[in-house]
Amino acid sequence: MQIYNEFELIARLTHGLTTRPDVALGVGDDCALLDIGSDSQLLATCDSQVEGVHFTLRTSTPEQIGRKALAVNLSDIAAMGGVPRFALISLVIPPRFSQEALEGIYRGLRQEAERHQVAIVGGNIAGAGQGKQLMLDITLLGTVRRGQAITRGGAQIGDVLCVTGSLGDSAAGLFTLLHPDGTGAENALTFVQARHRTPVPRVAEGRVLSAFGPAVVTAMLDISDGLSGDLQHLCERSGVGARVFAEHLPLTEEMQAIAARVGKDPLDWALHGGEDYELLFTLRPEKAREVIEAVQAQTGTRITRIGEIIPSGMCLIAPSGTEQPLQVRSWDHLH
Amino acid sequence: MQIYNEFELIARLTHGLTTRPDVALGVGDDCALLDIGSDSQLLATCDSQVEGVHFTLRTSTPEQIGRKALAVNLSDIAAMGGVPRFALISLVIPPRFSQEALEGIYRGLRQEAERHQVAIVGGNIAGAGQGKQLMLDITLLGTVRRGQAITRGGAQIGDVLCVTGSLGDSAAGLFTLLHPDGTGAENALTFVQARHRTPVPRVAEGRVLSAFGPAVVTAMLDISDGLSGDLQHLCERSGVGARVFAEHLPLTEEMQAIAARVGKDPLDWALHGGEDYELLFTLRPEKAREVIEAVQAQTGTRITRIGEIIPSGMCLIAPSGTEQPLQVRSWDHLH
Repeated sequence: MQIYNEFELIARLTHGLTTRPDVALGVGDDCALLDIGSDSQLLATCDSQVEGVHFTLRTSTPEQIGRKALAVNLSDIAAMGGVPRFALISLVIPPRFSQEALEGIYRGLRQEAERHQVAIVGGNIAGAGQGKQLMLDITLLGTVRRGQAITRGGAQIGDVLCVTGSLGDSAAGLFTLLHPDGTGAENALTFVQARHRTPVPRVAEGRVLSAFGPAVVTAMLDISDGLSGDLQHLCERSGVGARVFAEHLPLTEEMQAIAARVGKDPLDWALHGGEDYELLFTLRPEKAREVIEAVQAQTGTRITRIGEIIPSGMCLIAPSGTEQPLQVRSWDHLH
Repeated sequence: MQIYNEFELIARLTHGLTTRPDVALGVGDDCALLDIGSDSQLLATCDSQVEGVHFTLRTSTPEQIGRKALAVNLSDIAAMGGVPRFALISLVIPPRFSQEALEGIYRGLRQEAERHQVAIVGGNIAGAGQGKQLMLDITLLGTVRRGQAITRGGAQIGDVLCVTGSLGDSAAGLFTLLHPDGTGAENALTFVQARHRTPVPRVAEGRVLSAFGPAVVTAMLDISDGLSGDLQHLCERSGVGARVFAEHLPLTEEMQAIAARVGKDPLDWALHGGEDYELLFTLRPEKAREVIEAVQAQTGTRITRIGEIIPSGMCLIAPSGTEQPLQVRSWDHLH
């Protein structure tokens, strides 16, 4: 392990960063200097990842931690239907933190940035003093064509409620990482653990959706807290309720196999698991088929109708047809 | 002390935030949605403040900590000649951190934001797990008219080297806070401690300077590490050197009185002290008088010529006229 001072470390981590034509000035001055088109609005989001709270070096490699830290921010840009463009990376580093792990994290950040043509344009590195935990805080900037951003607040009664991909895989992956049973690698385990450690933000899907505009795709957000909790956010913001059909929830075979093996309810993971980073969105019913076909055709990602928007309340329809209240059991990031 | 969950806490801290007409959507969705003018370029900067490293609740009030955390970012926007507009606030909170202190910090953030017409448009709150330190990470976005940003890289041989305000007050203030001698409040002490705890970012001064454009104001940055270290940044970026006249450095009577009392060299604090948050900039010599008069007339802030740009090396001219190398003794934020 080598020790660097702050400026050497920044130089080392940011050496040869990939850039973009709209970055007039990246890392190295007081601010980044950026061009955004005149027909665009700016999107800005930030999210932090704390060692021991959001990740551990026991269950993820440094590269995976870096990738995920950026991916969760990409997911927020995706959830507005935007194009991610510029990232600022803030690191707080405990004393004697492994230089090699730090470089691995930055390698993961760069990989994920390059995958989405995002330029890392600034950041900050601070020591943690007596602190014991690595902290990554990322601000991601993107753009969206004026008038096409999809907020959480536009869902209307009668809208079709849809979700990208599948639900609950990440929760299953986290469970197996926290409770290893020594059975070694097999396909289902590898799949759900990858879904937890390196979620794929639905950026392309969000862009196809926002191209239809908010009159068709009326509300959208990404599922980070769990379907139940994030659906509640959407309902509260839109002033509506929702009905979810349990048997329509998209569950993978891999997740169900893991659930059976460890004696968990797969529906529970799908409803409340968190960290899916899928998009949850509502469509005007007369346009639903067209939009769903467009997203599937252009991205290859499955879109599933899981419910509908009702005047108020949140309820779950069991496979038997009985209706029960849908309780929120979200992950609280503070406790 | 009351305990809130994440969403309650966010709601409480961000209730009734001041907004601006260019904020299409602030806190509460996946991203903030922001308008920037078509003749502008975007400025983005981030900076974190860690308890025990950058501040302590023993030497600053919560409000002061909040104000300073935003001020240091405002100073970076000022150093490009920009207009600060939007802030994202990320907090990492240790278990059992005082709710009252947290609200005080947020109050300070809001005060400083309102003072500069900055809208807080997003953020994030995370628990610190076993961590013991509060961490604030702020991303600040601003704009600058296309072509008018002042970088660190344009200084030319023969340029006049100038600084706003005074140097070394903050270092004197920090010294007295770390070594209280029980003499109680007096004017000099109050002054230097305020300069340390609540630095005033030179936003207005930066804007007057950038209006002249980079052909006149050739390079600029803010002094956070100390004059010697930040001058080195400017020289390296511009590929030049600098000569500084010790007797021209703007020292306040208050700082010199404190230095005399505690047996420190005031020149040392002015050259290497750090956290001044003054602007250091270079002017084409034929325009220097006009620019300096304009800044002083429009802002009331004193501008001092402290040296000149030379082909290479950094040297200090003592009052006796002897020349010596100007050594860099910056604060390294990692050690």
